[in-house]
Amino acid sequence: MSTQRKVILYIAMSLDGYIATPDNGLEFLSLVEEKDQDYSYKDFVNTVDTVIVGRKSYDKVLSMGLEYPHTDKDLYIITRTPRPTVGSTTFYTGDLKELVSDLKRNVGKDIYVDGGAEIANEMLSENLIDEFYISVIPILLGNGISLFNNSRPQVRLKLISTKSYNKGLVQLHYLKA
Amino acid sequence: MSTQRKVILYIAMSLDGYIATPDNGLEFLSLVEEKDQDYSYKDFVNTVDTVIVGRKSYDKVLSMGLEYPHTDKDLYIITRTPRPTVGSTTFYTGDLKELVSDLKRNVGKDIYVDGGAEIANEMLSENLIDEFYISVIPILLGNGISLFNNSRPQVRLKLISTKSYNKGLVQLHYLKA
Repeated sequence: MSTQRKVILYIAMSLDGYIATPDNGLEFLSLVEEKDQDYSYKDFVNTVDTVIVGRKSYDKVLSMGLEYPHTDKDLYIITRTPRPTVGSTTFYTGDLKELVSDLKRNVGKDIYVDGGAEIANEMLSENLIDEFYISVIPILLGNGISLFNNSRPQVRLKLISTKSYNKGLVQLHYLKA
Repeated sequence: MSTQRKVILYIAMSLDGYIATPDNGLEFLSLVEEKDQDYSYKDFVNTVDTVIVGRKSYDKVLSMGLEYPHTDKDLYIITRTPRPTVGSTTFYTGDLKELVSDLKRNVGKDIYVDGGAEIANEMLSENLIDEFYISVIPILLGNGISLFNNSRPQVRLKLISTKSYNKGLVQLHYLKA
């Protein structure tokens, strides 16, 4: 039995729905940092073999002097500026909907949407997300970059599970209904 | 031992943070309607003796031919248009911050903020909410009246509990940290 690969948004937001402060700051995530606690991230990452990420989020990681993780996977950086493919890293300038249907035509593990807000919203606007892991951080940021912008289609969800952790993070897991 | 009365926001929102559709529709709440399941609402209501609600939300209930509930409690309708007090129902045109500090100066049960978005945001902007019960409905509305507007102060929260229910509602309970 083969089931179709799913497109999964795995992301953290404040209770008021921001994934970053207005200046793209992620300091609030440190509120839930805990030794030996990865909130099942590693387990999740093992279920995917393809990662889609926006160019800005990708460059932000590099600008911190880090290597972008997931280079062992098929990596699609969504950008408006063509760049040559490097190994399994593709700089994709085409249509997101087409990318997803191409990927789904192939057999493989699931597909991880790693943000940022622009890519998440474009995927949501096109109703391309099949599964959601939303980690709610115990803070109201008051301001910032919203995970959910206006003018997306209505999507019914099925709650799969909810887990709460020591530091007050709540992980909500939904499937598109 | 007497502890100060708390101001509690008890409200439902879609996963994308809307408390109503753009036309103030609440039809999505029917997704989680279930016989004999009130999501602990009655228990909660028994812990309060005072209700604060915006004039529009109040009038919306009346326009549906219903009596506004909680007439057994001290009811403050927040409005710009003065109206005479009726029994325990006060039409309050003053400053919200003052109202809350007046109420807190008196001994009593907790204080329930029943919405709508305008009042919730004014209370949040003034950092007047001490406790939160947010019921997350399993849907992305895509558009609507946001529970959380921009330009509020940052508020750290302490997760008290999370409960998930049959129909996919998740109730998040926080205290201001």
